[in-house]
Amino acid sequence: MLQPTENGARYDLASPTAMPNAGGFLWNRRMMIQVTCRGYATAQFMQPEPAKYSYAPNLEAKTFMQPEQAYYAHHPGRFFYVKDEETGELFSAPHEPVRAAPDRFAFSVGRDDIAWTVEKLGIRIDLRLGLPVDDVAELWTLTVTNVSGRPRKVSVYPYFTIGYMSWMNQSAEYRADLGGIVASSVTPYQKLQDYFKNKDFKDKTYFLCETAPDAWEANQGQFEGEGGLHAPDALRNERLAGGDARYETPVAVVQYRLSLDAGAAATRRFLFGPARDDAEIASMKQRYLGAEQFAAAARAYAAYADHGAGCLQVETPDAEFDNFVNRWLARQVFYHGDVNRLSTDPQTRNYLQDNMGMAFIKPAVARAAFLHALSQQGANGAMPDGILLFEGAELKYINQVPHTDHCVWLPVCLQAYLDETGDYAVLDEHVTGHDGMALTAYERISMAMDWLLHKRDHRGLSYIEQGDWCDPMNMVGYKGRGVSGWLTVAAAYALNLWADVCAARGDDWRTEHFRAGALDMNTAANLHLWDGAWYARGITDDDVIFGVSGDKEGRIYLNPQSWAFLSGAPDEKQRATMLAEIDGQLDTPYGVQMFAPPYSAMREDVGRVTQKHPGSAENGAVYNHASVFYIYSLYTIAQPDRAWDALRKMIPGPGEDDYLRRGQLPVFIPNYYRGAWKEYPRTAGRSSQLFNTGTVSWVYRSIVEGLCGLKGDAAGLVVNPQLPSHWPSMRVRRMFRGATFDVSVTRGAVGRTTVVCDGKQLPEARIAGIEAGRTYRVEVTVP
Amino acid sequence: MLQPTENGARYDLASPTAMPNAGGFLWNRRMMIQVTCRGYATAQFMQPEPAKYSYAPNLEAKTFMQPEQAYYAHHPGRFFYVKDEETGELFSAPHEPVRAAPDRFAFSVGRDDIAWTVEKLGIRIDLRLGLPVDDVAELWTLTVTNVSGRPRKVSVYPYFTIGYMSWMNQSAEYRADLGGIVASSVTPYQKLQDYFKNKDFKDKTYFLCETAPDAWEANQGQFEGEGGLHAPDALRNERLAGGDARYETPVAVVQYRLSLDAGAAATRRFLFGPARDDAEIASMKQRYLGAEQFAAAARAYAAYADHGAGCLQVETPDAEFDNFVNRWLARQVFYHGDVNRLSTDPQTRNYLQDNMGMAFIKPAVARAAFLHALSQQGANGAMPDGILLFEGAELKYINQVPHTDHCVWLPVCLQAYLDETGDYAVLDEHVTGHDGMALTAYERISMAMDWLLHKRDHRGLSYIEQGDWCDPMNMVGYKGRGVSGWLTVAAAYALNLWADVCAARGDDWRTEHFRAGALDMNTAANLHLWDGAWYARGITDDDVIFGVSGDKEGRIYLNPQSWAFLSGAPDEKQRATMLAEIDGQLDTPYGVQMFAPPYSAMREDVGRVTQKHPGSAENGAVYNHASVFYIYSLYTIAQPDRAWDALRKMIPGPGEDDYLRRGQLPVFIPNYYRGAWKEYPRTAGRSSQLFNTGTVSWVYRSIVEGLCGLKGDAAGLVVNPQLPSHWPSMRVRRMFRGATFDVSVTRGAVGRTTVVCDGKQLPEARIAGIEAGRTYRVEVTVP
Repeated sequence: MLQPTENGARYDLASPTAMPNAGGFLWNRRMMIQVTCRGYATAQFMQPEPAKYSYAPNLEAKTFMQPEQAYYAHHPGRFFYVKDEETGELFSAPHEPVRAAPDRFAFSVGRDDIAWTVEKLGIRIDLRLGLPVDDVAELWTLTVTNVSGRPRKVSVYPYFTIGYMSWMNQSAEYRADLGGIVASSVTPYQKLQDYFKNKDFKDKTYFLCETAPDAWEANQGQFEGEGGLHAPDALRNERLAGGDARYETPVAVVQYRLSLDAGAAATRRFLFGPARDDAEIASMKQRYLGAEQFAAAARAYAAYADHGAGCLQVETPDAEFDNFVNRWLARQVFYHGDVNRLSTDPQTRNYLQDNMGMAFIKPAVARAAFLHALSQQGANGAMPDGILLFEGAELKYINQVPHTDHCVWLPVCLQAYLDETGDYAVLDEHVTGHDGMALTAYERISMAMDWLLHKRDHRGLSYIEQGDWCDPMNMVGYKGRGVSGWLTVAAAYALNLWADVCAARGDDWRTEHFRAGALDMNTAANLHLWDGAWYARGITDDDVIFGVSGDKEGRIYLNPQSWAFLSGAPDEKQRATMLAEIDGQLDTPYGVQMFAPPYSAMREDVGRVTQKHPGSAENGAVYNHASVFYIYSLYTIAQPDRAWDALRKMIPGPGEDDYLRRGQLPVFIPNYYRGAWKEYPRTAGRSSQLFNTGTVSWVYRSIVEGLCGLKGDAAGLVVNPQLPSHWPSMRVRRMFRGATFDVSVTRGAVGRTTVVCDGKQLPEARIAGIEAGRTYRVEVTVP
Repeated sequence: MLQPTENGARYDLASPTAMPNAGGFLWNRRMMIQVTCRGYATAQFMQPEPAKYSYAPNLEAKTFMQPEQAYYAHHPGRFFYVKDEETGELFSAPHEPVRAAPDRFAFSVGRDDIAWTVEKLGIRIDLRLGLPVDDVAELWTLTVTNVSGRPRKVSVYPYFTIGYMSWMNQSAEYRADLGGIVASSVTPYQKLQDYFKNKDFKDKTYFLCETAPDAWEANQGQFEGEGGLHAPDALRNERLAGGDARYETPVAVVQYRLSLDAGAAATRRFLFGPARDDAEIASMKQRYLGAEQFAAAARAYAAYADHGAGCLQVETPDAEFDNFVNRWLARQVFYHGDVNRLSTDPQTRNYLQDNMGMAFIKPAVARAAFLHALSQQGANGAMPDGILLFEGAELKYINQVPHTDHCVWLPVCLQAYLDETGDYAVLDEHVTGHDGMALTAYERISMAMDWLLHKRDHRGLSYIEQGDWCDPMNMVGYKGRGVSGWLTVAAAYALNLWADVCAARGDDWRTEHFRAGALDMNTAANLHLWDGAWYARGITDDDVIFGVSGDKEGRIYLNPQSWAFLSGAPDEKQRATMLAEIDGQLDTPYGVQMFAPPYSAMREDVGRVTQKHPGSAENGAVYNHASVFYIYSLYTIAQPDRAWDALRKMIPGPGEDDYLRRGQLPVFIPNYYRGAWKEYPRTAGRSSQLFNTGTVSWVYRSIVEGLCGLKGDAAGLVVNPQLPSHWPSMRVRRMFRGATFDVSVTRGAVGRTTVVCDGKQLPEARIAGIEAGRTYRVEVTVP
């Protein structure tokens, strides 16, 4: 049903019905498209805010991408109807809208393209979607092959949805001069100032054909008629009617009437995208539409994607895991870091964590991002809720809600960069902040740490205001008194990390100051938040402790435990009870839940998180971002088996049952799998299908630093692999500071990890004096 | 195909395909529903802003109702699948989603209900939808009759869409305790303050069954499966699977397995609507779900609708026109006036004009509305852009754009009320405005008139700012200099009307003041706006006159001509050329266009109107609101033939060709019919299907005062019928100030209109000394 092909470079799904919402995504610097195996598509481009060129059939809300998005017949998609001219029989590729059972089906997701092969009625349809690097356009290749062994007459009709573009103005017509269907619209608005904001928008959608079609239709209603999308009226006629849409829902359908000898094939290429005007359409056509141009675009895209290859290749006893790490994980990390989730105002914590991931992929990008983020720091040391990336961008959605955790991420994420690059000079860069002052990055982060120390109550616990990392935990502290248990230990961790940095600079006063602050917070956590077997999630405005054994719902939260492991708050005995409780209460076959049990109704002193559907998103899902914090923390307390178990569950599979349950290809990690495993077992494990998630940078970091144990420090590479106990060995190729390390790890009768580098046993498990350009052969023996 | 039934009380459409978007609407004090002949539905209720209980399949934008709204398979609707248990054959009533060709079809729109009869496979489905008066609920009656002449086994499945309720939380399940499917959701939000705003929202949708069903399904995806909505997987099984929706798209489908002898029938009743909680659902069930309760609700609704009967019954040579006026027009006027288009902040001009219509229906409501509007007047006499009707309501959408016409409507609309009621005492009511001052209505309207006089440029022309009556004409004067030709003559008309009121009160100074102002504005119009054969629409910020013969697009606008007729600006010679140009440039088979030619591209010194699709809405449609101003003005200059011609074209029909072209039943007047008759003939005449329009109060007024010529004045009823010249006679029953006038109008050899009242010839065409409660027999002879 599901298998890697081309040596793992692709994943192929052999059924359009087994995992109907399974899809893949492609992006470039200006756009993103997610396509399902059945042909539904969600695409957006930036101008600079997200915009569409293929719309829903109604006026959609402007919103962020939603988890578990349901599809429906008229959802935007890219379909290819095929009609046997002799019998009138019909099918469509990939699968929608006809939904005919194919004789053969392959949905094939690659790094640089998405492809399908669909065979039915003796006709094979091969489809390929690629993107250019710097323009908004879809490059589609269609090949129709007669595999029936006899001459055939078929009509093939690419059907590209355009949808309800605008209530102000929408129309479409075939343009022989441009060679395709062009739809025109005016982005709806009412306020004068929006006219000036919108006037250069790409309000046209074009569908251009390399080969002139035999017929076309631009009017959705006329095409569909009474037959419905699965059997459109227009396909009963010999030729499409050539209609236009005049303030009617546009569509782009064209018809090719093909006579194919046995074994013969015909190829057609199409360009689909938005444009401002005819001149831009003509220019896009010239630039991209043709066999050579497609090949050039594919080469350019491959070169772009190569930049995201990352710093790690693994070979472990789990081939599917290897494939994910080697082919797909770095790609997803690169996506986040390179285009910032196609947002103009990423949440500060997302921006910093995405760039933490980028430290492993393109460190220079991460460096610039950290400095850019600091440039938006306030005079009091606070970080804003979002980082504005474009002139004129505004804080939107959740970034209008005050959160108290953003400062935490500065040392936490920067640490990965420092470890990876050794570039401590970044700390001396001068950054002019929103406060107008030119301070060094070091001074700015120190200010942020002081802000964290300051934002605490009389007990020394961190205020939560309207949320911390958990966005919808918005009513614990909105009256100004509630505190976050997670943030208290997370801040302690951040302060400890920063104290280390201060110490390395010889800044004794700050070292002591922050170290003392961290200790104070850990102490406060133990005094006020320890519930006997785990740490509470917080204390509300009305002084009610929650996330504790007395709670029926939201009894134990994962985050306070994970970050306490990081902060050093618990002693060994505490750690043992915490782990046992996590195992017993939070672990599921699909990963570790963020908390349990999920809330079944609003709890007004906790907030919006309790109103989400039980088991979805932050309300007790296997919320992978929280799970990976746990995984990362497990490596810091030498819990490789638990870490591996949770890590492996983040990736769909192996095994058909698991794939079917998740409903997702193992080509990305989603933001969550449905939780509420005990309460709603039917849906548990189902993927959200959302590939925007802070998870992946931490997965990468956990694998690099934890599983592979190949983390940098100021002067070299520390070696400390943490294989799960059932693994006898693994191999790693690690790119680090310009050098390559071919590492082989085996289990041996050693008391502690020993390292042989280029044949020489090292005195400690640490490689120093690294020379860029060299390849090191490293043999590691672990106990 | 289309015919009145029950003596015109209903309109029946015999085809589900001839006019696919034709529908009817029902409303009550809390909700509105528009249903198409095929079963698609658009419903909203007020809490207090518009909300839904049956949603689209995706997250829809919050928006006002859109013209020519396209439907699609998963659009919200109410469908009834029927399966022959013996053959497996399927159809659905009314028509969607199966779209099987029926053996018999009737879509029947009544004043108080909407009904269907659909016959197929020897089974007749009768459906009836009614509403209660004061609750949000749909009352559905389904009757299944075996007309095949042999015993039958069928399953009937009501399928009520619930759709994508919320990304935060959505679920549904069958609730045996409540007797139906209950879906639950949380209205999506992110900001804390919205929690408190939303917490009492009716976030549940219930579908309750009087008779317990044999099976059910609450999960849309499970129901539909691979089969598609036209042939859902779930209907292949003997029984629905009883599934639930857990953060999955909900639906309400139930199954009744019926064994029907030849001729036998089974009836089922359903209640569909929103509720806050289970208790409310249980209470709604008790209040409404049952044969007796349905009958009681129907009686109550009829009593409610009776309040909207209006003051006029006509009998003319045009029976379809009579039917529209007598059965449907007053209903639409009542709808506007009673619920203010289900808006919490109606535009000031809409609110005043809708209540102008209410002066003929429920004058006390109109009186209160005029005073309420004045209570929101500013200290400088200006009226706001919208009238807030609820505590906490806000000016939204277009009401955030500054318009300069709102004061005009005060005397214009109040005049109809004064004429109808003679209630001049309203002028002495004290109204405390936004300025905090308690002034009489008379003083306030005088202030408004002074504001109009003040808001003029050095030429004496009225500033337009970001729009006048024409909302999207927003760039003529946004820099502060542009002026409106229409507003100049409209203000002159308003000032003249008000001067008459002042004169009647013996307020000589104001009479002279406003009369002089009106004269000044008419003079300015003739000096600066007369283009040789008609008046210009305005002069832009950059001193460019437009709506003139030199313009290629937007050459002649209707409004400046109509209102100049009202203001008295043109002399007889001017009037003649204006009429000839309107005839030649603006008249079409579907009514008089608002201007011509439509704009084909943005004109930056005119604005947003030029960006709308040519022929749609304000960009050169037959925009009925503008058309009826013209009609009204024609009656004031004794042009009964032109007036009748334009008036008749406002109503779909007669004749099948015209009905098909409009695509709308003659049960309401839409806000526009597609124009651009010369440029886009294929779509010209098509109805917008929007029944919210300022048109209808003016149509009512035009018929009362113009066609029938039965207008009140301070002391009585002025008689001046203006029959089109091809009519020999008409009869009118007019309710006026508590009396009834049975009026018969005939053409005779008279020099001027003569009136015989109860057998006595009157000295002038005016009935004075009216006694409430009496019926007058009036014989009118016209030249």
